[in-house]
Amino acid sequence: MEQVLSTNNLVISVDAMGGDNSPRVVIEGLALAAKKNPDARFLLFGDEAKVSPILNQFADLKKVCELRHTSEMVHNEDKPSLVIRNRNTSMYMAIDAVRKGEAQAIVSAGNTGALMAISKLVLKTITKIHRPAIVSIMPHRTGKYVMLDLGANTECNAINLAEFALMGDILAKHALGINRPRVALLNIGAEEMKGKEEIRQAAHMIKNAKMNIDFRGYIEPHEIPNGVADVIVADGFTGNIALKSIEGTARLVVRMLKDAVRGSILAKLGLPFMIGVIFQIKKLMDPRLYNGAMFVGLNGLSVKSHGGTDALGFSVAVGNAIHLVRQNFVATIREEVEKIDLDELSQEAIYEVY
Amino acid sequence: MEQVLSTNNLVISVDAMGGDNSPRVVIEGLALAAKKNPDARFLLFGDEAKVSPILNQFADLKKVCELRHTSEMVHNEDKPSLVIRNRNTSMYMAIDAVRKGEAQAIVSAGNTGALMAISKLVLKTITKIHRPAIVSIMPHRTGKYVMLDLGANTECNAINLAEFALMGDILAKHALGINRPRVALLNIGAEEMKGKEEIRQAAHMIKNAKMNIDFRGYIEPHEIPNGVADVIVADGFTGNIALKSIEGTARLVVRMLKDAVRGSILAKLGLPFMIGVIFQIKKLMDPRLYNGAMFVGLNGLSVKSHGGTDALGFSVAVGNAIHLVRQNFVATIREEVEKIDLDELSQEAIYEVY
Repeated sequence: MEQVLSTNNLVISVDAMGGDNSPRVVIEGLALAAKKNPDARFLLFGDEAKVSPILNQFADLKKVCELRHTSEMVHNEDKPSLVIRNRNTSMYMAIDAVRKGEAQAIVSAGNTGALMAISKLVLKTITKIHRPAIVSIMPHRTGKYVMLDLGANTECNAINLAEFALMGDILAKHALGINRPRVALLNIGAEEMKGKEEIRQAAHMIKNAKMNIDFRGYIEPHEIPNGVADVIVADGFTGNIALKSIEGTARLVVRMLKDAVRGSILAKLGLPFMIGVIFQIKKLMDPRLYNGAMFVGLNGLSVKSHGGTDALGFSVAVGNAIHLVRQNFVATIREEVEKIDLDELSQEAIYEVY
Repeated sequence: MEQVLSTNNLVISVDAMGGDNSPRVVIEGLALAAKKNPDARFLLFGDEAKVSPILNQFADLKKVCELRHTSEMVHNEDKPSLVIRNRNTSMYMAIDAVRKGEAQAIVSAGNTGALMAISKLVLKTITKIHRPAIVSIMPHRTGKYVMLDLGANTECNAINLAEFALMGDILAKHALGINRPRVALLNIGAEEMKGKEEIRQAAHMIKNAKMNIDFRGYIEPHEIPNGVADVIVADGFTGNIALKSIEGTARLVVRMLKDAVRGSILAKLGLPFMIGVIFQIKKLMDPRLYNGAMFVGLNGLSVKSHGGTDALGFSVAVGNAIHLVRQNFVATIREEVEKIDLDELSQEAIYEVY
């Protein structure tokens, strides 16, 4: 199968062993992604005895796949500090293929901490980017937005936030096709205080930088669903809190609705009329369609699929990776960050805030 | 009317001029609260020319009210740092009545920052409590929980968080009638990092303290709606982010549903069957029923009603105040915090974390 990858094709490296129902879900997901992206090739890492029998069921996919055997894998309970030492896991090898230039992006549904740690170690942060970030695409009322960082960095300074704004801007352009994304910093608007100092400094930096970003200032979390910004920037702790609050509440409301309908005979009678609406809402909020958190700021794109997703969900994560590779996402970040000197700007920002 | 307050009655001090539709909404709200709480008395501060004509329409309420005239008021755009200097505003005078012992709690629908600043200045923080906090009662799937701090303190150390846990525990007992509230610290659970250091230290402190709290460790935001904790503790920045993410998402889902039903003729036909369910959900999530953020940790209770609420919403805020006064909420906090030495505990916690 070697010749599959010998052309100048777009190649995605895949950890076949990551996730709750691997390798079956991974391969079924790849089959879906391959059908949508006939030019993409896949470099699979995993246990041949487990992967091959399933891969053999997908003849079309098999033609665009190369499988490399490894009997070792990262488990969910493994500590990131330990897994980075084992170069023989399917996850490590899949990431290393990007470093070697054999693939342009890696997708895994495995242990998030391990994926982050190995990706950072192996792919390394882009020169001039101080910290990589985790980004997701999320739905608002009338479209989609990107939010970062969602948990790679608990504490961030103004430079980190400004870099996230830059990377988020590029991601929104490339992944969402928005010409001039509106970028905002997540903050609180309580009268007594105007949020954290590093956020105020980041606002100054972004305004003063020759970043060419459509910066809209601060956004409060309750404004996010109204679609007033395309890129929401936060430190990893805050972003993670907002993301999980949003996810939890969406599930709660849907659950409350289900419970209420179940408890009402009249409502059950009305259900057939509502089927269309229910499907519409379900589709709008289907977490599978927003699967694939992207680890950005590294020399190569690393995408984390939800561990419990199904084939459709996994194919969305792979589709995101393919789309961004096609658009030269990593190279664009490198070029854009070259144009500005954030360290110098941060000094100016600190000076101006005081 | 002086004799109204001369008895040993429960007295709530009210800023009649705060909020978008004051004093009408305030007085209509008080009328509702008075009907439910025949033993409560109200000390109103506001412009007599504006308040009296409306108060005259509510004969029953008028009997349990004393109105004190002031022509000055705090406006929404006023800076907290300036309003604390003017002792003649309806808000300042209403708060000062609590300090003087004329009332046990103050309710205002005015400027949040001003209410916080004046309350802190006038009522002062309880001895041994380092920082007051803003608390709200919120709905989860099967009941209610309290969350604090929602914005009084952007940055918090472990002692602050431990104190919030203590105050939240007492509030859940008194306001929600939960015998032994389950208390949890809001945190993120990303594999790579276990949240912020001050949260880890606070967890140690709470475990080691003789606080007699049913401490359940960390909670992630998406678990909140499942009702696994009765008290959620966070710093003011994180709490505010979570609160507004939850509110915004709940509104988004309801909005999506409305939009979808409007766009479907079939769904419109089914609506009559769904009316019961819709009312049930609306009632479950009605923000008016959760109105009244409480500013706790001061020598007296200060309650902030939403500025845009209606009479029902205002009456809920007043009802919360009455309920907590009846339960001796402030005295209980004073007694409980006397039993523990948090400063000493914080040293131990820091020692143990390292």
